[in-house]
Amino acid sequence: MRPGIMLAAAAALFVLQPGAGAQTDESGAVAGEARAWREGHEVAILRELRAFLALPNHASDAPAIRANAEHIVTLLQARGATARILEAGGSAPAVYGEIDTPGTDLTLMVYAHYDGQPVERALWRTDPFDPVLLSATHEAGGVPLDWDSLAAPVDPDARLYARSASDDKSPLIAVLAAIDALEAAGRPLAVDVKFFLEGEEEAGSPHLTQMLTAHRDLLDADIWLLADGPVDPRGDPRVMLGVRGVTRAELTVFGPARVLHSGHFGNVAPNPGARLAHLVASMRDENGRILIDGLDSPAQMSEAALAFLEDGAFDDAAMFAQAGIARPEWGEDARYGEAIAHPALNVLALSMGAQDGPATNAIQTEARATLGFRLTPGLPVETVREALAAHVRAQGYHLVEGEPTPQDRLVHDRLARLEFSEFGYAAAYTDPAHPLAARLIALADAASPEPLRVVPLLGGSLPLAPIQDVLGVPFVIVPMVNADNNQHAPNENLRIGNLWYGIELYAVILAGLGGEDGAPSR
Amino acid sequence: MRPGIMLAAAAALFVLQPGAGAQTDESGAVAGEARAWREGHEVAILRELRAFLALPNHASDAPAIRANAEHIVTLLQARGATARILEAGGSAPAVYGEIDTPGTDLTLMVYAHYDGQPVERALWRTDPFDPVLLSATHEAGGVPLDWDSLAAPVDPDARLYARSASDDKSPLIAVLAAIDALEAAGRPLAVDVKFFLEGEEEAGSPHLTQMLTAHRDLLDADIWLLADGPVDPRGDPRVMLGVRGVTRAELTVFGPARVLHSGHFGNVAPNPGARLAHLVASMRDENGRILIDGLDSPAQMSEAALAFLEDGAFDDAAMFAQAGIARPEWGEDARYGEAIAHPALNVLALSMGAQDGPATNAIQTEARATLGFRLTPGLPVETVREALAAHVRAQGYHLVEGEPTPQDRLVHDRLARLEFSEFGYAAAYTDPAHPLAARLIALADAASPEPLRVVPLLGGSLPLAPIQDVLGVPFVIVPMVNADNNQHAPNENLRIGNLWYGIELYAVILAGLGGEDGAPSR
Repeated sequence: MRPGIMLAAAAALFVLQPGAGAQTDESGAVAGEARAWREGHEVAILRELRAFLALPNHASDAPAIRANAEHIVTLLQARGATARILEAGGSAPAVYGEIDTPGTDLTLMVYAHYDGQPVERALWRTDPFDPVLLSATHEAGGVPLDWDSLAAPVDPDARLYARSASDDKSPLIAVLAAIDALEAAGRPLAVDVKFFLEGEEEAGSPHLTQMLTAHRDLLDADIWLLADGPVDPRGDPRVMLGVRGVTRAELTVFGPARVLHSGHFGNVAPNPGARLAHLVASMRDENGRILIDGLDSPAQMSEAALAFLEDGAFDDAAMFAQAGIARPEWGEDARYGEAIAHPALNVLALSMGAQDGPATNAIQTEARATLGFRLTPGLPVETVREALAAHVRAQGYHLVEGEPTPQDRLVHDRLARLEFSEFGYAAAYTDPAHPLAARLIALADAASPEPLRVVPLLGGSLPLAPIQDVLGVPFVIVPMVNADNNQHAPNENLRIGNLWYGIELYAVILAGLGGEDGAPSR
Repeated sequence: MRPGIMLAAAAALFVLQPGAGAQTDESGAVAGEARAWREGHEVAILRELRAFLALPNHASDAPAIRANAEHIVTLLQARGATARILEAGGSAPAVYGEIDTPGTDLTLMVYAHYDGQPVERALWRTDPFDPVLLSATHEAGGVPLDWDSLAAPVDPDARLYARSASDDKSPLIAVLAAIDALEAAGRPLAVDVKFFLEGEEEAGSPHLTQMLTAHRDLLDADIWLLADGPVDPRGDPRVMLGVRGVTRAELTVFGPARVLHSGHFGNVAPNPGARLAHLVASMRDENGRILIDGLDSPAQMSEAALAFLEDGAFDDAAMFAQAGIARPEWGEDARYGEAIAHPALNVLALSMGAQDGPATNAIQTEARATLGFRLTPGLPVETVREALAAHVRAQGYHLVEGEPTPQDRLVHDRLARLEFSEFGYAAAYTDPAHPLAARLIALADAASPEPLRVVPLLGGSLPLAPIQDVLGVPFVIVPMVNADNNQHAPNENLRIGNLWYGIELYAVILAGLGGEDGAPSR
């Protein structure tokens, strides 16, 4: 194993398949073939991406979304794939595609999404749906390159500005270019390739479970490759194996039945703000440790995964600097990876009394907190709800639905309400020791000379649990785009060198996943 | 001492002057003379009050306020008083008056205020400045009595509806009627009488200290009688000897420098809402006990005063029922008087995050609490400020002015800001054992057959400390109006029987305060 893979403590725990890994002759050869083909087709690849990016793609714009889906069908069909639109339960149209490879029964699902975040046009320097190629970033003084006279080689540091340039249209173009390159080189795919291209990811993938359930046979595969997200902010390639889950609850603590004079009733009527403070303080300490029974355990992840978490998965100093803080909440010497490997209870909002002027000298009838939870692997959403309710009850509170009745108020000293959001899903992660995941990681490592960062868990959340829950299939997130891409923000962009990298990355995976000899591995 | 005075435990501690108290021959005689005169002049008294109430009197309406002041000057002059308008530092006009009594050098200051709370006309059943006399309350089906054909006897349960009918124009009319009655009976006043009639009490008496300082000689007296507030809600007469002070502070606890993703930074960036909860919880327990060093002591009041507090001063059950609570915050078995005899820390408002929609999944940059304090006698405002700041520092916080700098953020893990309101004043109370106060209390007790409630401290606040601080003079609040008068609310009213009571009450005091024989007592 070469030193490139960020794997020291983890080395003893995580055994890549023999012969896999960086700089094998075969991976190097595939990457070289992809590179050579790309060097001969740079302008065509960029024009294909430009045309795709020119289609507005906000999830709420149904006709635009459908136009994107139909466009993708033609892109897939141009590679000889069968392609069709899939829908489920009122979802946006997803595109399903399939390329059958003779001689393998191993199937790789390529996931990407074609919808984009809304655009606030006034904040964009150029039209988000009229892609502009600059010689460098705006900030670095990039100047426009003329599409009509564009010629290879295009500077890898050039940037393409458009909504979804990075999130998440270019990864699909890179995968398709990789297929074109392998075809041109006469190198067969190592796997059957399926495509699932979602049109409502930015809306929270609200129909993913329905989609997977309704089209289980089509969407089944041996492993899902999620072509989304950015590479490491340090510029290194990375793969991500997991995400925290998320849910939230509204907590209301009740005071007196009517707003009361704070002089006549101070020390007499229960103060809901003070009670809320005590209740929240009972739920988590000041270092982020959750004090609620059942929610106080770290992530249930393999030792291999935890070792990766400790070992270069994140740039701790950069993350802390980004927050502008003197020390991490988790503790002076805490590692970023250690902190996110625990469930988080974030107080998201607090409110009591007038919010638009000076507070009145009054004891309010209620105080509210929005409690946001981030869930680690092994912690179901329902457990969070049950544990939270049990904790509030254990502090002496009687939980009501709606408003307390006068009778509630006379019987129970402590009254509260918990409203659980319907929004919520569990964490999901793939054990890096899973054989096929390990092979895919090794290929990602082999696809570039820079060290691969293996990120077993992200602090953020994506609704990936249904892939495991419905299909029982592992996933690996294999990103290619630059970290400074302004995703979800104005002036989203793609560094062209990252597109070139993506083509080689996906080519190495598509050609190598079946095993060293390209044969099915199961 | 008759049993009427609510004084059991206190009896051993508080010795009224010998011979004072209820049903003395002299007090009974004075009350009877006042009653007889009133019975012959009911319509005239009510018409004088009606004319006064017809003058709009919101503190922000300067011409209206001045018209009230000029009207009061004529009312006083009609009783042979010298009268003039006093101003200080941009204050509303106050009216000063003086009646010199031969043979005494004891001076009683009568305080009342003529300004009123704003009116929300849509919520009034009748014009708040066109006084309407009903045969009973609106709620009891009262019908209008015609002013032109009004004749004595007027039913004591009739109600006069108008802004300031109770708060606080009728007490002045009652005092003036008492003076008329004594004059008619040939009974001399026992004291020199001064009047100070304020025009901005409902605005918080913002110039009271300036007024007392600028006109110290005029406003000096041996005791101030504050003719304001309602009698006991049980219908019993009462006197009030003290009020809690008040101040407030805005507490801001800082989180990260920018709003951060709650997934990527949950457990990593400090959560200002959670920190605020811990900080507030460190300041007071769930039973209202303040945990801040220096603010954790009960009121510094005489044993006589504390004994009154425990002894019938308040209708505990009614107060708790009004709050609609299962138990007092101070404790299951706590008395109302016990609770308010301690400083109170009321959380008045909380805010963090968006207040007008669902919370975002983000860690906010700051969380805020408005902390309201009620101060007991012996606790200066400045002590509260110093103790609060010391407490926050003792929890590890670095206090900033304005916004934390990037340097602050990198050096100090815990950052907070305290902003102290300029609004604030200390508690004030008069020891019931003060000889002249005791004499006045005894006369109030003697003025009616119902038991007098002695209330040594109110939970609420009034800026009375300057009377003691600037003039060094004791005060007693001697109310006459019904407790269900809707003060500060729509449909303010006065029960006519309470006006009749007030005339007798103030007559007994004005005729008796100099001592049993009407001679000066100092």
